[in-house]
Amino acid sequence: MNIVVIGAGNVATHLAEALKNAGENIVQVFSRTELSAKTLADKLRTAYTTDISNIERNSDVYIYALKDDALAEIIEQMPTKNGIHLHTAGSVPMSIFAQKKTHFGVLYPLQTFTKSKKVDFANIPLFIEASDDKTEKTLHDLAQKISKKVYCANSTERGRLHLAAVFACNFVNHLFAIADELLGDVPFSELLPLITETVAKAQTMPPKDAQTGPAHRGDTATMEKHLQLLASNKAWQTIYRNISDDIMRCNDEGEKQ
Amino acid sequence: MNIVVIGAGNVATHLAEALKNAGENIVQVFSRTELSAKTLADKLRTAYTTDISNIERNSDVYIYALKDDALAEIIEQMPTKNGIHLHTAGSVPMSIFAQKKTHFGVLYPLQTFTKSKKVDFANIPLFIEASDDKTEKTLHDLAQKISKKVYCANSTERGRLHLAAVFACNFVNHLFAIADELLGDVPFSELLPLITETVAKAQTMPPKDAQTGPAHRGDTATMEKHLQLLASNKAWQTIYRNISDDIMRCNDEGEKQ
Repeated sequence: MNIVVIGAGNVATHLAEALKNAGENIVQVFSRTELSAKTLADKLRTAYTTDISNIERNSDVYIYALKDDALAEIIEQMPTKNGIHLHTAGSVPMSIFAQKKTHFGVLYPLQTFTKSKKVDFANIPLFIEASDDKTEKTLHDLAQKISKKVYCANSTERGRLHLAAVFACNFVNHLFAIADELLGDVPFSELLPLITETVAKAQTMPPKDAQTGPAHRGDTATMEKHLQLLASNKAWQTIYRNISDDIMRCNDEGEKQ
Repeated sequence: MNIVVIGAGNVATHLAEALKNAGENIVQVFSRTELSAKTLADKLRTAYTTDISNIERNSDVYIYALKDDALAEIIEQMPTKNGIHLHTAGSVPMSIFAQKKTHFGVLYPLQTFTKSKKVDFANIPLFIEASDDKTEKTLHDLAQKISKKVYCANSTERGRLHLAAVFACNFVNHLFAIADELLGDVPFSELLPLITETVAKAQTMPPKDAQTGPAHRGDTATMEKHLQLLASNKAWQTIYRNISDDIMRCNDEGEKQ
């Protein structure tokens, strides 16, 4: 299939490369930033444009991999209704296309992307949604070419998936950043065995059954010491208190059952 | 060396097994709970007692792997000053032994333990502290028999390490538990590629440089949607808001630099 990629950020880059490797034909890249557009187009050995009016009008698929707040404007300006129009955002409903396009949908990869770091697309869960059965079939076939894990999810379900991903990925990474700073001169790598074990446990048992630590034990003396250590950073003290309180609340609920 | 293990919980079990496998002689296990004492003693093919007055008086090392709030009482009741007395707690200062024993110290493994799950002790960072140089030498040699990573840390440094571990392990696991609940019918395993990638990034770059997500992008529209999805759970809404605010604060500081 002929595919136009709109956007040249992390998601656009990884998704376009996976599609090309699966034998799809990326006919054009659009980005308003020439360097980004050219960099991605060069990687894909294809054409690019920074002028939305120059977008190829007769492509089979248009993939909008853009920041959420840019989506509506670019969809509005897109000079064609032909083909299938897809966005890749977790928290934007499919209905954003409804007034503007005929066939449309969503292809949401549940993964975090960094341009410089290769990812194995085959194991990334892809959640799809489509405007009609024929589009869903096409989208499903396309998604299966790049991933073994393709699921249907409507916009409400996808919003919850994205929210869960924010907790399990974005927020987890920020807790790593806080831990890194708390370690001072000790390198963050010394925490990796602990982190690896935490994730290994999550692979073998429900996370709520794997909980350990002062809050889980109800060890108020240690929690008090920790809150004192955090006295100079009220934001971290608040995060410590809120998460500990929530762990203790889960314990209480577990005991009641 | 002859070692008495005081306690029969997760840390006691894993540490005693590692020491035995390294050729040390576990002469006795003490726990007030007979089933726990017997279970661990059977594993180690050694003796046990539930009566603290029956503790072996002439062992080389006594390892107290107990809940923090039980430590002071058990140290008080311990019927011998002979040998080296060690605890394994991150947030208890070494000075808890000072009035009661002659040679003492701390052996703190930076890891989370579950009884049923084997861990590779060789890669667990062990942080040690001792009352005197001779004890430190003995403790260092003992620690090196079970781990390749032995470091000295005083009680203040160890307290910070423990606090960092609470953020990077206990709190991270609780965020996994929240994500699991948010996923509803979608199995938690669908988040594992995302989690694995998050940890893989932390192995190759400082976590603050790896941050992604709505708060990092300053995407207030998505954050508003997420806060609405969390409206029925005020505790999670507060955690979402606090961590997002802190991510945005880090962005601001990064930009100022």
